[in-house]
Amino acid sequence: MTLPWGRIERRLRQFLPGRAVVARRQELLTYDSDGLTLHRQEPPLAVLPETTEQVAAVLSLCHEEGVPFVARGSGTGLSGGAVAEQESLLVVTSRMRSVLALDLENQRITVQPGVINSWVTRAVSGDGFYYAPDPSSQVVCSIGGNVAENAGGVHCLKYGVTSNHVLELEVVLPDGRITRLGGSLAEMPGLDLRGVFIGSEGTLGIATAITLRLLRQPQTVQVLLADFPSMEAAGEAVRRVTEAGVLPAGMEIMDNFTINAVDDLFGCDEYPRDAAAVLLIELDGRLEEVDAAALRTMELCRRAGARSLRRAESDTDRALLWKGRKSAFAAVGRITPTYYVQDGVVPRSALPAVLAAIELLSRRYSLPVANVFHAGDGNLHPLILYDASQEGVQDRVQALGADILRLCIDAGGSITGEHGVGADKRCYMDWMFSPDDLSTMRLVRQAFDPEGRANPGKLFPTPRSCGESARLARTVRVNVAAGKEADRPLPASLEVF
Amino acid sequence: MTLPWGRIERRLRQFLPGRAVVARRQELLTYDSDGLTLHRQEPPLAVLPETTEQVAAVLSLCHEEGVPFVARGSGTGLSGGAVAEQESLLVVTSRMRSVLALDLENQRITVQPGVINSWVTRAVSGDGFYYAPDPSSQVVCSIGGNVAENAGGVHCLKYGVTSNHVLELEVVLPDGRITRLGGSLAEMPGLDLRGVFIGSEGTLGIATAITLRLLRQPQTVQVLLADFPSMEAAGEAVRRVTEAGVLPAGMEIMDNFTINAVDDLFGCDEYPRDAAAVLLIELDGRLEEVDAAALRTMELCRRAGARSLRRAESDTDRALLWKGRKSAFAAVGRITPTYYVQDGVVPRSALPAVLAAIELLSRRYSLPVANVFHAGDGNLHPLILYDASQEGVQDRVQALGADILRLCIDAGGSITGEHGVGADKRCYMDWMFSPDDLSTMRLVRQAFDPEGRANPGKLFPTPRSCGESARLARTVRVNVAAGKEADRPLPASLEVF
Repeated sequence: MTLPWGRIERRLRQFLPGRAVVARRQELLTYDSDGLTLHRQEPPLAVLPETTEQVAAVLSLCHEEGVPFVARGSGTGLSGGAVAEQESLLVVTSRMRSVLALDLENQRITVQPGVINSWVTRAVSGDGFYYAPDPSSQVVCSIGGNVAENAGGVHCLKYGVTSNHVLELEVVLPDGRITRLGGSLAEMPGLDLRGVFIGSEGTLGIATAITLRLLRQPQTVQVLLADFPSMEAAGEAVRRVTEAGVLPAGMEIMDNFTINAVDDLFGCDEYPRDAAAVLLIELDGRLEEVDAAALRTMELCRRAGARSLRRAESDTDRALLWKGRKSAFAAVGRITPTYYVQDGVVPRSALPAVLAAIELLSRRYSLPVANVFHAGDGNLHPLILYDASQEGVQDRVQALGADILRLCIDAGGSITGEHGVGADKRCYMDWMFSPDDLSTMRLVRQAFDPEGRANPGKLFPTPRSCGESARLARTVRVNVAAGKEADRPLPASLEVF
Repeated sequence: MTLPWGRIERRLRQFLPGRAVVARRQELLTYDSDGLTLHRQEPPLAVLPETTEQVAAVLSLCHEEGVPFVARGSGTGLSGGAVAEQESLLVVTSRMRSVLALDLENQRITVQPGVINSWVTRAVSGDGFYYAPDPSSQVVCSIGGNVAENAGGVHCLKYGVTSNHVLELEVVLPDGRITRLGGSLAEMPGLDLRGVFIGSEGTLGIATAITLRLLRQPQTVQVLLADFPSMEAAGEAVRRVTEAGVLPAGMEIMDNFTINAVDDLFGCDEYPRDAAAVLLIELDGRLEEVDAAALRTMELCRRAGARSLRRAESDTDRALLWKGRKSAFAAVGRITPTYYVQDGVVPRSALPAVLAAIELLSRRYSLPVANVFHAGDGNLHPLILYDASQEGVQDRVQALGADILRLCIDAGGSITGEHGVGADKRCYMDWMFSPDDLSTMRLVRQAFDPEGRANPGKLFPTPRSCGESARLARTVRVNVAAGKEADRPLPASLEVF
């Protein structure tokens, strides 16, 4: 350790309440990883401020002392973004859980960053409103974390991701100054820094107050479940529904592996075990509109080859159909010691080809892959199943993950849909962006954080973190594929089709 | 002139075709203002490149020679943004009018910046698609200009402004390097620089290829026209429709002054001349949905006090109802020698109070104000009518404009909804943003343009441009209001209610 953490702790205690400073190793262990346990590092010190002023005072002190810092919400992230890798102060927002302002007439609410995603809807549902973005971790993840990762969710197909729902941000900059980005109206003059901050994964500062757009609850919600004899048929149904101009609130696909995992978990045959894929479609809106859309969607699914169709109109029935999808990760987790969830995006039209290629890769690596995904927007979540106690398996898993992402990019897609880059994918950023693209991003980052003390080492590729791991991933891939060509240089694009 | 324009012209001619360099005074006069004629300045030299490579070469040369530059599309802007105030090279995109790529399956199109807004829809309408943002100048304004100003339009209530429809940008930076911002998918990793660029009013570089999202044409479009005995009743109708959860494609209000101007223009009584306000509502979607929404909306208008209601379902009838709104500016222009169109935004709930206050201000300044506005999103377009030949009137007009904007800010709104800041409103930016907010924006701007050569002097307040004019506006206001208190310092907030 090169920083004077003893002195920093004493100085923090001068203006923070006792319980807001965590220095005991045992307590710090809680913070050694986020939802992606591949990346672990216990922070040297953590603070849990309660107000904007306290955050500003903490970051001012960091500025004076040259201390890097990492902001952390509920720690449910899946890219290692909230891990203090580089001897940094961890700033935890879990005591910043107040609603600061509520303006129902103009459909907005201002909250502190530690407020849990599902609390927002709970706070306003009595008045007929809700907050749209719904990551699957919504009962535990924080709004501040959602902003950092530009979180998505099942309903983002129709309603857009977090950036479409954040109007204004109060941000403490890395030097302790407080600035406001965006405004309470949809459109503001000047440079749109609100948009840059959302999804910046903690590299620009810490949001301390977040104004969200509230939507009116739809009059009706219905859910359809269709099962298909092939993944291609399920994909075809998605294509037909989209082409017909129906815009469901969500369209989710689970493959046969996941279907069986879910049925095993609940000890029943909720989903047909022999289906190659099930497609869940949620429709919302006014009753007559939803009724009409449901009938058309069912017909389109049938024409695409659906074997059976179910339709849920009551809250209970809907919850039942969704239950399997919502428990999919847990169900897969029960039958494998460990899994690694990937998060790639491809244009909708490339879905069938990419899924077929993932299956080929899965066989080549001898690692099972379960597929659960947001089919409507081409956001894949392949779960790579493995046993961490196996010698060398972690490298193979990461190599397969990397190959899947390479597939996505080659299909015109992206290395992450909603989980972020964090520590996990920084070395793949230069697969997507040219040196000039990345340099423009770095310059903008420097405008907010000239010393690079906000979540250092994340989001951008660095020679230190990427020199080796990127090479490793490629080498392993060839090991698996060709057995003996370990050191052969690779072509730029994989040929797995 | 301090720059060696002769040499610059010679160097430009070395790599640009002859017709791409404009140096004759007579031709340069075309470019001395945009749609806002308050700001005029003839550029010393203009270029009309045709390709990204030519733009890059032009900006590289500017970089070498230390030449500022101003990008210009069709010149229809309303904030003086495309005027080369500070001895700058004008880069006109009107010869960059090609469609570069079309991918209907994934609903996107890539165009050069000079492509006219309405051409995009024309290019894809045969296949059932359209481009949603529709500024009233859409038959002449360019996509590049739309991006620079983050243009809005009637249909942005439901579909969002330009930034919601631009997926990817190829941008030539002020040093001539080419970078890509965003990506062809809705979500991309890294910092969202696409969002910063859109609405940056030419201060970050020049977009040379723009990928737009295409929407499917709705099955049905219907238009309703309701007339009201008071502006409050029209506002109440907007409130009720919104509260009922109906989301029209557009909701527009015209006041009595504008109604009469329009009826005079067409020599008929298309709109009821004695109405205090007419409300136009466009609904789109599937036939049965639109039918249901139309019936409910009509009922809600009636309850809010509508005197009469008309409903147009055919293309011809719809065009007839819209004709007046689309000609409103022209109609007002016919009965006044000059007008100055303001562009402020207020939260919907503040609309009635702000409109009443604008009427008070109009009387106090003895300058008629016609109101035409996007009621659904609180975007006001007050037209201040005046005769430019009157001694000193221009200052009073600008002072009234400034007072209206101050009203909007005090009501929790903004100084511009869709016309941009440009030269016209840069001195009001510090009414909305703190020095820290503006300094963060300036630092981000410097990340793209360290030497400040891209559209210099626009968007941000400068002591040089604002020291005097801001003071002037305030002084004049007091002159008018109190007759003799010309030099009294003003309170921070106006008290006009």
